[in-house]
Amino acid sequence: MLEMETELTALKTRLIEISDLNNAAAVLGWDQATYMPSGGAEARGRQMATLAKLAQEKFIDLAVGKLLDDLQPYEESLPYDSDDASLIRVTRRDYERAIKIPPEFVGRFSAHSSESYQAWTEARPANDFARLRPLLEKTLDLSREMANFFPGYEHIADPLIDFADYGMKAASVRALFAELREKTVPIVQAITAQAPADDSCLKRNYPEAGQFAFSELTIKRLGYDYTRGRMDKTHHPFTTGFSIGDVRITTRVQENWLGDCLFSAIHEAGHAMYEQGVDKAYEGTPLAGGASAGVHESQSRLWENVVGRSRGFWEYFYPELQKTFPEQLEDVSLETFHRAVNKVERSLIRTDADEVTYNLHVMLRFDFELEMLEGKLAVKDLPEAWHEHFQADFGLRAPDDRDGVLQDVHWFAGLIGGVFQGYTLGNVLGAQFYAAALEAHPEIPDDMRQGKFDTLHRWLIENIYRHGRKYTAEELVQRVTGGPISIAPYIQYLHSKYGELYKI
Amino acid sequence: MLEMETELTALKTRLIEISDLNNAAAVLGWDQATYMPSGGAEARGRQMATLAKLAQEKFIDLAVGKLLDDLQPYEESLPYDSDDASLIRVTRRDYERAIKIPPEFVGRFSAHSSESYQAWTEARPANDFARLRPLLEKTLDLSREMANFFPGYEHIADPLIDFADYGMKAASVRALFAELREKTVPIVQAITAQAPADDSCLKRNYPEAGQFAFSELTIKRLGYDYTRGRMDKTHHPFTTGFSIGDVRITTRVQENWLGDCLFSAIHEAGHAMYEQGVDKAYEGTPLAGGASAGVHESQSRLWENVVGRSRGFWEYFYPELQKTFPEQLEDVSLETFHRAVNKVERSLIRTDADEVTYNLHVMLRFDFELEMLEGKLAVKDLPEAWHEHFQADFGLRAPDDRDGVLQDVHWFAGLIGGVFQGYTLGNVLGAQFYAAALEAHPEIPDDMRQGKFDTLHRWLIENIYRHGRKYTAEELVQRVTGGPISIAPYIQYLHSKYGELYKI
Repeated sequence: MLEMETELTALKTRLIEISDLNNAAAVLGWDQATYMPSGGAEARGRQMATLAKLAQEKFIDLAVGKLLDDLQPYEESLPYDSDDASLIRVTRRDYERAIKIPPEFVGRFSAHSSESYQAWTEARPANDFARLRPLLEKTLDLSREMANFFPGYEHIADPLIDFADYGMKAASVRALFAELREKTVPIVQAITAQAPADDSCLKRNYPEAGQFAFSELTIKRLGYDYTRGRMDKTHHPFTTGFSIGDVRITTRVQENWLGDCLFSAIHEAGHAMYEQGVDKAYEGTPLAGGASAGVHESQSRLWENVVGRSRGFWEYFYPELQKTFPEQLEDVSLETFHRAVNKVERSLIRTDADEVTYNLHVMLRFDFELEMLEGKLAVKDLPEAWHEHFQADFGLRAPDDRDGVLQDVHWFAGLIGGVFQGYTLGNVLGAQFYAAALEAHPEIPDDMRQGKFDTLHRWLIENIYRHGRKYTAEELVQRVTGGPISIAPYIQYLHSKYGELYKI
Repeated sequence: MLEMETELTALKTRLIEISDLNNAAAVLGWDQATYMPSGGAEARGRQMATLAKLAQEKFIDLAVGKLLDDLQPYEESLPYDSDDASLIRVTRRDYERAIKIPPEFVGRFSAHSSESYQAWTEARPANDFARLRPLLEKTLDLSREMANFFPGYEHIADPLIDFADYGMKAASVRALFAELREKTVPIVQAITAQAPADDSCLKRNYPEAGQFAFSELTIKRLGYDYTRGRMDKTHHPFTTGFSIGDVRITTRVQENWLGDCLFSAIHEAGHAMYEQGVDKAYEGTPLAGGASAGVHESQSRLWENVVGRSRGFWEYFYPELQKTFPEQLEDVSLETFHRAVNKVERSLIRTDADEVTYNLHVMLRFDFELEMLEGKLAVKDLPEAWHEHFQADFGLRAPDDRDGVLQDVHWFAGLIGGVFQGYTLGNVLGAQFYAAALEAHPEIPDDMRQGKFDTLHRWLIENIYRHGRKYTAEELVQRVTGGPISIAPYIQYLHSKYGELYKI
């Protein structure tokens, strides 16, 4: 076994170097999105591409494959969920995927993403789809090229979905989404048939500094560790990590819309608390990270919505918010405010959407991804297709592309395919996990009412966060809930919460 | 020649990849100094070390040596100062130095520097030399180890001085410093025998935001391009570049001392304008950068002092500064203010020191570097040695180590040796270059009085900046001034300027 330990150490040494390159690229990406002057864009794209290509070259080195082969008997001698067996297993899964992707492609794709992201930051405010069209066409080509490194798929989106949500396919996501749509649409209809909640209190003037400070205070109390993270402003909020000791988030502020900064911050803090909670022993290895896009999103959505839009949360935080914005909120009752942050309506922007209609936004994007990859929808037709489908699903038409197809950064900074399903899987999984947490700790709602969030946080660390990528999403759901993924807890949550707020 | 062009392209491709790794490491260093949460320090040190080691491995690859050998006939067929010949020549010089340093050492040194820098940011405010002592002892060991990769030196500091100021040695620096000391001390004595200038106007309360904004406005007008740079706050101001399109500076603010933020900003902007002015064709190659530490410093000191503390500069900027701080400055005349920012006194802090005494601060550090490297001064004895020598040179004793041996970041973030001589070489060279600029454009002082700084800026770009590292410092001085490095213009500048301000 001594030989095995030497080989495992050799593997870890290689993995840490690769993680250093990937994390360095992540720092460059964070900098590009936060503080980089525009003049830095050209070289930055190349620098990130160089790092991505080198990391890929180092990972697909035959020596890594050889070490994984050599370590197989050792892995088989260990319990499935031991750290060492899990490291070998998860690394092998990543390796077998990675060796199919040429480093040259990784570099090319990284450079293109960086260029495209930079263009989006300027073209979205300018409502300029035409500028982004050739870039998006190239993204679609690259996405197809990526999928085709994995021949034998049922649907061309399958390999891309599998990257993000291992084990899922276009067909399984479609089935789940169809079920969810069937249960959701009647709730949306029942609610929107009633008089809308009054959310005018959120649309007063809220100066940026106060919004940012209140958001910081809130996420710190929820458990986001500021000695191992920080929050900055970006066009599109995101979470990025450079180590378990440095997991950063970003938010954005609209001075006439109180909902954006705070709920973006809580959302991203949910992602970040997940990564901050990973076992420190996994640092620099493929086990550091989240189980899947869906599980990751379950944590952002859980903290943002199940916690951050709950009555108990606001019983605790509302007096503090009133202190921050006395003039704006002195005449607004807790009840009015709580109804406002839970207003259900057919609206234009996914990230601002309420919990009930949110998944319809995701489904629209998911369908577009499949159609584009299938070749049934051309990029040039996307803006109009967006408006039409949106009209059909929401009875609304965005005034421009800025709040239509340009609203989300994802397609302009990464692949087309596998990008959006995770958000809805997250809503579903978040409700499942929260139900399990409540079963173990029925006192959680009372604790939150008193500003005590660590009962929930500690349960999540213990049952989900610390495991990092040790378990697949499916394994994790099974361990935590005792069953497979199911939409039932989520639908029950919506009925229970919105049954109180509206008559449904 | 077609074959040569292919080989040159192959060389450039390798060099760009290496520059990408080095520039990525620089981004990580900038982030560590500006925004990184403390929890990120451990992984960050390792990440920077990985990048430094990989860059070194890639540079000392035998294939690089082979390309350089193959390209020698091509280089010899070209004019000495052609871009291609210069690229090959400068790359060979760097290569021949680099192959003597093992990548393992580079990684180890980078990791140590990062750890030591992080500790200094906490230990300096806490006045805790004891915490830094073992780190500094290791730095001294590593500095000796580095020097000893270059056997055959006259003085152990020579290889380290040569890194920063190619062609200089301990002996040549000592000789120059002795001459300079001989000419400077009488000026210091003549001035400090008189009543000191009243600089109380700089010590009023100047809120941070106003200082920062005024500094930004100033350096923009001088010519620092904000679309290709930005300014942030750090413990110790510095300049760092990630490409010719992204050269950043930092400053620091003391609310009861107007001199720090502004002059630090101008100083660093001088460095940054140099790097922003390099020919874009040199991007990603060893030609992008400054000719030497001394030439680099000549630009920071020229803009900070020769320009930024001149009468003409303040004739233009003082009304603006009064508008920024009306209460603090309404009763202060331009003349009083100009005398205040040129107050000559024996003081504790190098970066705050006036132009006349400044070099004495540098000489003290330079002597300590030599003594430590020679083994004549142990790190444990350094704090007390500092106080003693300082007393001897300045007639002052710092109240603690914070404002003694801990005041400068350099030894805590890099080598001991070769670090400080560049500052004084910069003062000397800056005066030489400025004299040459005045000869070509006698209107420069009048232009500055009217807020027109581009006569000087364009001359510097044309004669110095655009060449990057094409010429050595010696070659550049010869080209620009028609002679060798000389202290005469600097002494003449001091006499002329301080002769007007004081009776000497």
